[in-house]
Amino acid sequence: MTVTLKEIQDAYQRIESHIVKTPLLNSPRLDAIAGRRLWLKAEPLQVTGSFKFRGACSAVSALSSEVLERGVVAYSSGNHAQGVALAAKIWGARATIIMPHDAPANKVANTEAYGARVVRYKRGVESREAIGTQLATQEGLHLIKPYDDPHVIAGQGSIGLELVDQLRDAGAKASSLLCCCGGGGLSAGLATALHSLAKDITLHTVEPEGFDDTARSLSLGERVTNATEQGSICDAIVTPTPGELTFPVLKRYAGPGFAVSDMAVLNAMKVAFDTLKLVIEPGGAVALAAALDPATLPDDQELVVVASGGNVDERVFQQALQFG
Amino acid sequence: MTVTLKEIQDAYQRIESHIVKTPLLNSPRLDAIAGRRLWLKAEPLQVTGSFKFRGACSAVSALSSEVLERGVVAYSSGNHAQGVALAAKIWGARATIIMPHDAPANKVANTEAYGARVVRYKRGVESREAIGTQLATQEGLHLIKPYDDPHVIAGQGSIGLELVDQLRDAGAKASSLLCCCGGGGLSAGLATALHSLAKDITLHTVEPEGFDDTARSLSLGERVTNATEQGSICDAIVTPTPGELTFPVLKRYAGPGFAVSDMAVLNAMKVAFDTLKLVIEPGGAVALAAALDPATLPDDQELVVVASGGNVDERVFQQALQFG
Repeated sequence: MTVTLKEIQDAYQRIESHIVKTPLLNSPRLDAIAGRRLWLKAEPLQVTGSFKFRGACSAVSALSSEVLERGVVAYSSGNHAQGVALAAKIWGARATIIMPHDAPANKVANTEAYGARVVRYKRGVESREAIGTQLATQEGLHLIKPYDDPHVIAGQGSIGLELVDQLRDAGAKASSLLCCCGGGGLSAGLATALHSLAKDITLHTVEPEGFDDTARSLSLGERVTNATEQGSICDAIVTPTPGELTFPVLKRYAGPGFAVSDMAVLNAMKVAFDTLKLVIEPGGAVALAAALDPATLPDDQELVVVASGGNVDERVFQQALQFG
Repeated sequence: MTVTLKEIQDAYQRIESHIVKTPLLNSPRLDAIAGRRLWLKAEPLQVTGSFKFRGACSAVSALSSEVLERGVVAYSSGNHAQGVALAAKIWGARATIIMPHDAPANKVANTEAYGARVVRYKRGVESREAIGTQLATQEGLHLIKPYDDPHVIAGQGSIGLELVDQLRDAGAKASSLLCCCGGGGLSAGLATALHSLAKDITLHTVEPEGFDDTARSLSLGERVTNATEQGSICDAIVTPTPGELTFPVLKRYAGPGFAVSDMAVLNAMKVAFDTLKLVIEPGGAVALAAALDPATLPDDQELVVVASGGNVDERVFQQALQFG
């Protein structure tokens, strides 16, 4: 199944009554700091604290009652986990979630609180894909991949449907959108929606420095892999390589990707605290970090930024509060 | 001028294109912690970080061009200051703001950043009302009071217009609303809107313990004064006595008021960080704090909570993060 506007609209119809239509925020003080007008789509306010709930609801709601009866399994550093756990609960399925040993404590606790069984694995040593496939086979569970799943991509793309309306209502004149990127489910879905509904807006992916597989893959025209999966504070978007389904979409529709430092990310989190009163997690703040850097794009341009999630431990958030 | 639904609707028409229609948030995890369904109106996401921008825009937009030409003056611990400063800038008037010596640094800095002249006074020693009146007379400025002004009350009441629609869309079945209360501008405006549009919802004021002049005044049927104006972390809502214009409205339309401890407030701020990804300042979190206390109202009831602002120094926010 190729994801087109039709699949995104269908997904939105299935999930609309369960998700938050997140606001498009702006702030005169943020604009003053950025030196340009910024519009921020606030997905930390999404149910379960990140956009991943959209894709999870889309995927779970597309399953037959027989499959729901057997249950679902997912691997995730945390946000997809919480999304699938709650979506499964809503549609009456049991969920098993495979999470890395170093996943933030709050993400593990929340996933369990939504009623899911959590299985841990050692990131960088064990393969979560292999564990997921094995559990799916052994227990007859349906595997919901975090980004290489058309229904997941379509669900994430629903952000684009809301965004296009909200930008028009706000009178925004942005021609670039910055989007946090891990495996590319969000950016591929969003780029697909923009391609149909707002061709004048170009999506750029943003990743942590040293984990910019998508930016390098886009530049080379083929999928490359990061040297390591460990060492970034942006746990939510550290993936080894762009997705099989997502990369061709990004190659077709997205502009060059950017990368930002951990320091720039912590600073962006502090700026969002100060000016937007929004809690953003490190992986969710990379796009805002790039937007605050005048070197990213010509500084007279309005920019749209997606803040993708807010599930951050208080210890990490305290590091950000010490900035600025 | 008595404020009725008509004045609130007129105010909304003047300010609608300048304010954020703030989302009504809920969260399964918050509901689990509260032991009941909660709906939270997120005014920290309002422009300038608090609901005060609504009332300030309403008051400034109602002024004649001659009055705007001379300029406006306001006294405020911070949120009304920021609201008036930005509203004045939007409508092309110069603003002078009288702020207490112990106002949070970020509120002072923001007020100046919006282009206002800031004059400091010693809270508990000097009278901000006297300084405001004197400046108004000397310099021909128009004084915009923080709550005892019909246009301000009507502007704050605009929250009620949005809320009634949002609660209906969400299928909420709440019969009680908890609202942070300082001088009563927000609660009087909101109670007036609810009285016309949602008679089945009773508004209750919430204040800090030791500063519960409204709760005690409602209980006695006449305006009483707090023993002190100092010593609460809830700087935004520490006012000595209910307003002259606001109290009769609350006496008529509001249910009994509640009071909460500083500890309960810090805990509520942490819960909002964890479950809603929303930054709430102490004075803005008293209603959520009351909602989290099972002793406040029968715990099988759905509740609506207004979070009124998010302008908190990082030092105070760090105290909250250490909770729970």
